[in-house]
Amino acid sequence: MIERLAVVGVGLLGGSLAKAARTQAIAREIVGIGRDEGRLRPALTDGTLDRITTDLADGLRAADRVVLGATVLANETLLPQVWRAAATGAIVTDVGSTKRGIVAVAEQLAPGRRDVQFVGSHPMAGSEKAGYAVSRPDLFQGATVVMTPTESNSPAAVKSVGELWTAVGARVVTLEADVHDRAVAAISHLPHVVAWALVDAVTRFEPDAFALAARGFKDTTRIAAADPDMWREILLGNRDAVLASVALHLHDVHFDQPPLFRLASAVRRRLCGDQRSEQRGNT
Amino acid sequence: MIERLAVVGVGLLGGSLAKAARTQAIAREIVGIGRDEGRLRPALTDGTLDRITTDLADGLRAADRVVLGATVLANETLLPQVWRAAATGAIVTDVGSTKRGIVAVAEQLAPGRRDVQFVGSHPMAGSEKAGYAVSRPDLFQGATVVMTPTESNSPAAVKSVGELWTAVGARVVTLEADVHDRAVAAISHLPHVVAWALVDAVTRFEPDAFALAARGFKDTTRIAAADPDMWREILLGNRDAVLASVALHLHDVHFDQPPLFRLASAVRRRLCGDQRSEQRGNT
Repeated sequence: MIERLAVVGVGLLGGSLAKAARTQAIAREIVGIGRDEGRLRPALTDGTLDRITTDLADGLRAADRVVLGATVLANETLLPQVWRAAATGAIVTDVGSTKRGIVAVAEQLAPGRRDVQFVGSHPMAGSEKAGYAVSRPDLFQGATVVMTPTESNSPAAVKSVGELWTAVGARVVTLEADVHDRAVAAISHLPHVVAWALVDAVTRFEPDAFALAARGFKDTTRIAAADPDMWREILLGNRDAVLASVALHLHDVHFDQPPLFRLASAVRRRLCGDQRSEQRGNT
Repeated sequence: MIERLAVVGVGLLGGSLAKAARTQAIAREIVGIGRDEGRLRPALTDGTLDRITTDLADGLRAADRVVLGATVLANETLLPQVWRAAATGAIVTDVGSTKRGIVAVAEQLAPGRRDVQFVGSHPMAGSEKAGYAVSRPDLFQGATVVMTPTESNSPAAVKSVGELWTAVGARVVTLEADVHDRAVAAISHLPHVVAWALVDAVTRFEPDAFALAARGFKDTTRIAAADPDMWREILLGNRDAVLASVALHLHDVHFDQPPLFRLASAVRRRLCGDQRSEQRGNT
């Protein structure tokens, strides 16, 4: 049982974790910390949080678990302050989409206080929408959470963060921070770049065509509605890996007829196995 | 009321139209025509079709409405045979994804028999799956169907095809064939090319990352599972327009930092209105 869980940044992910912790009764007390008390209040009013504060040191007092739920760069900026203010034995994690940056900050801070531990986390769950209003207690049910522990971490701290995610329904995978960043460049960051470029290409090529958009287009571009400020930080934090995946995509998308059709067939085999001949229409 | 509806090619679209026509009771008799009787049989067994045949001329006899539900090139190849075999007064349409090709064939055929009419249709509905097994009577409910009539068409024929689609729940839009083809290049064909290239880029850049794929990646690439043989015909039939839209996408996706972030913000404004500041997380 967690005595006091402090969530710094109560948006979609931080809010969902607080709701899940409440629903699963894994923390005796949940404290929400943010810059704007008015934005924190809904989570107090609906019973998700026991206490809210805009004072980081006050919020972290006696907290044995701390979750950083702000944006990637904000979390990196907050971590040194968290390190100074954290209670003895506090175990800190985050929910950021890139991991090399914050893990590097934690590694620099580690020698200063060995009684505080940071273990990076990235829940592969979310939405093109952001904010506490769209948070929900089951967001992590069945989701994959990547943890990126280092040699500085005690086995107990790694176990404890893993248990937090397991308790809210997630499947935990452990990766090195740089392996993680490369994987999400391919599976998450590249699709965002492509979705933006797709919407923009249609806007410039044939704006009237939006009226004809069916489910295929809507699904393909849903993530283009994600917050550009948040994504600016993510892409800059993972610039080299994103660049490498974009380069491969550019190479593929060149409309060179025979390779394109080989590509389509290969993709189909990968996604569908060998059922193509069964599924085709008959004429 | 249609006396006899002939559906040539009873796959996802042809099968769904037959099912909808049956459910809405808009045809006294529905005949299914295909190359393989075994593949037609399920639609006879389940009561969707009254009769099946592999003989085109036999199937078209006394049919006052004909729907070509095969692939784009197959429909173009079939149309001259349909023209020869069709009953006097028959009104023919199709469900193909590109329209310039088949409309051009129809225009060539029109002077030969003025008692047969072809009005092109493209229902903006479908699935990454194909075949009669995935057809359903409500596929066209709420869907947009683009009709591409020409000056060769009698107003009665255009009205009749429009009523067919309206009767199965679709919203009908009329466009010139070349305007249609340009619009679907942007809204449908480009997203397919991009989805294939996205899956392939991940396969080559970071194949292990598939294990981390969440809803964003799955939605963005769902259409990559579409049948490559069918899509080969669609893309070749619309080559110039697809090339133009791909060129714009390539221009957008180049990872040039300030333009990319301006692009993301512009896309967000387009998709979400001006709610960005409300939706962001608080920290």
